[in-house]
Amino acid sequence: MSSSIDTRPVILTGDRTTGPLHLGHYVGSLKSRVALQHSHRQFLLLADTQALTDNAHDPEKVRRNVLEVALDYLAVGIDPVETAICVQSALPALAELTLLYMNFVTVGRLERNPTIKTEIQLRGFERDIPAGFLCYPVAQAADITTFKATVVPVGEDQAPLIEQTNEIVRRLNRQVGRDILVEAEAMVPTVGRLPGVDGKAKMSKSQGNAIPLSASPDHIRDAVRRMYTDPDHIRVSDPGRIEGNVVFTYLDAFCDDRQFVDELKARYRQGGLGDVTLKRHLDGILQALLAPIRERRARFASEPDYVMGILWEGTLKARARTEATLAELRAALGLFTLT
Amino acid sequence: MSSSIDTRPVILTGDRTTGPLHLGHYVGSLKSRVALQHSHRQFLLLADTQALTDNAHDPEKVRRNVLEVALDYLAVGIDPVETAICVQSALPALAELTLLYMNFVTVGRLERNPTIKTEIQLRGFERDIPAGFLCYPVAQAADITTFKATVVPVGEDQAPLIEQTNEIVRRLNRQVGRDILVEAEAMVPTVGRLPGVDGKAKMSKSQGNAIPLSASPDHIRDAVRRMYTDPDHIRVSDPGRIEGNVVFTYLDAFCDDRQFVDELKARYRQGGLGDVTLKRHLDGILQALLAPIRERRARFASEPDYVMGILWEGTLKARARTEATLAELRAALGLFTLT
Repeated sequence: MSSSIDTRPVILTGDRTTGPLHLGHYVGSLKSRVALQHSHRQFLLLADTQALTDNAHDPEKVRRNVLEVALDYLAVGIDPVETAICVQSALPALAELTLLYMNFVTVGRLERNPTIKTEIQLRGFERDIPAGFLCYPVAQAADITTFKATVVPVGEDQAPLIEQTNEIVRRLNRQVGRDILVEAEAMVPTVGRLPGVDGKAKMSKSQGNAIPLSASPDHIRDAVRRMYTDPDHIRVSDPGRIEGNVVFTYLDAFCDDRQFVDELKARYRQGGLGDVTLKRHLDGILQALLAPIRERRARFASEPDYVMGILWEGTLKARARTEATLAELRAALGLFTLT
Repeated sequence: MSSSIDTRPVILTGDRTTGPLHLGHYVGSLKSRVALQHSHRQFLLLADTQALTDNAHDPEKVRRNVLEVALDYLAVGIDPVETAICVQSALPALAELTLLYMNFVTVGRLERNPTIKTEIQLRGFERDIPAGFLCYPVAQAADITTFKATVVPVGEDQAPLIEQTNEIVRRLNRQVGRDILVEAEAMVPTVGRLPGVDGKAKMSKSQGNAIPLSASPDHIRDAVRRMYTDPDHIRVSDPGRIEGNVVFTYLDAFCDDRQFVDELKARYRQGGLGDVTLKRHLDGILQALLAPIRERRARFASEPDYVMGILWEGTLKARARTEATLAELRAALGLFTLT
């Protein structure tokens, strides 16, 4: 007899739906999601509820980008048969568990969370922190645990969020006297963060230094042309610097031919390789990478009903899983159930 | 053609399910709910989710009392055909709207809420305030507005909670550009709060100074016998004080024959009316009040399936109403909907 039990490790990850995804996402997360979707049971959360915690004034942006991000997923090769793509706001169990967990986490604990502290400063919230923003680590803990995810890909700076999640897991398991929730492990990416085309540490749509996955050939060419290199590399014959040179960082990230990149680096350091020629190489590589993504994206975008069907299917799978955990936890805690 | 549109004002009220209800509840809220259930469309919330905000360590107590409070409602004459008795935790729209509203309320605003400030002191939470407790005014705003309640019976000390609710209503209505949510009006009871049998300001199960609605005849008799009167009223012939004399406060609250009570007061002040005789009058009145309540309660308690059916029916009515508001608000805000 064959068993239908899926024993693969469970990944929960996703994106706040605040803008279409870009090359930074491709390098930092999308590529590995595509690679992991067969060996892992993967849920991708279109995190519209979380996006509202600092975009409550612009829900229209959050709404619009649910489909945009979904299109990006499909365009890069997320296979909706392997990966459940689901809409966070269509999963009420997440909200219910968030409220429940909020009774087990103190305000002081949330205020001490380093990730939250940094982000409060970044957003200039200070004393006007929306309660939803302060509590979003609890919401995230609800997301992770409701899916019973064992592997959660996060940036290095987000490790405190996984720690907060596991604290809640241990607290709840202790109260019910058995391991009903599972601790999650952070999966920190091995590749560094892709800088913006202007050389700033982070590629971000709001900074205007991003190349979106849907970028047109002209957009890509123009972005590469404007890309930050070595400001002291004036003439072709001058020796140039590799460190902090965004073109080389991108070549390292996107060119599979390591030997070719090493040769370019040597010639650039030595002098004799101009920025125009160098950038032409990168442009060719990015054009080749993004052309099929852009085409697939356009094909999916022309069939919104089909995409909506994919989201429904993924959301129903996610609903079954999250409702089951909620019911299990409520029963274990001895909460009331209408029968 | 007759119209089935219900134009009665909508009341939302209820009780945290932390213990069976007592005479204080009867005087303070239950009596008026029974009176108002025909002229108003009334929803009674068995507030188990809210009860968890300061009882997360004892969910079993919260669960057990869902049915106990429901029995109290039915026992005092709440008519489940007129009044929808519903279980808070079985209404996911409330949790979803709470999370949404939390993005529109700052942590500072919650910390300044006078009701919360007082209750934090009362419970000794101080720096260990559970996030759920700090945010419960937002949850309450979600309850009230999701039901589109126009009338909310509250104690005088709870007026700030209605103010917080209406702030959220105005904030959301302003954002969507129309009055999608309705402001609620506090209905403050005209009768004073019933003191405990020991003379303390508040009757409360945890203080051991309460007479529960399900009290046995012996329990009632004993409670009245122990009731605080005038400590200086030693001999029957001594003149006695009415002020602070719990027996008279109860006679004022429970005896419909005002003239008889006035006569008793005059005789007591003058001297010549002993506590034993006085208490016998009150005992008779309370026994007469509670006997039919106790009987009805026992009858309902013997048919748990029937009571569960009532809760289902009330919860389904509440679900229809709360899901409709959630969908309406999400659409008005322009949030994503799976179609």
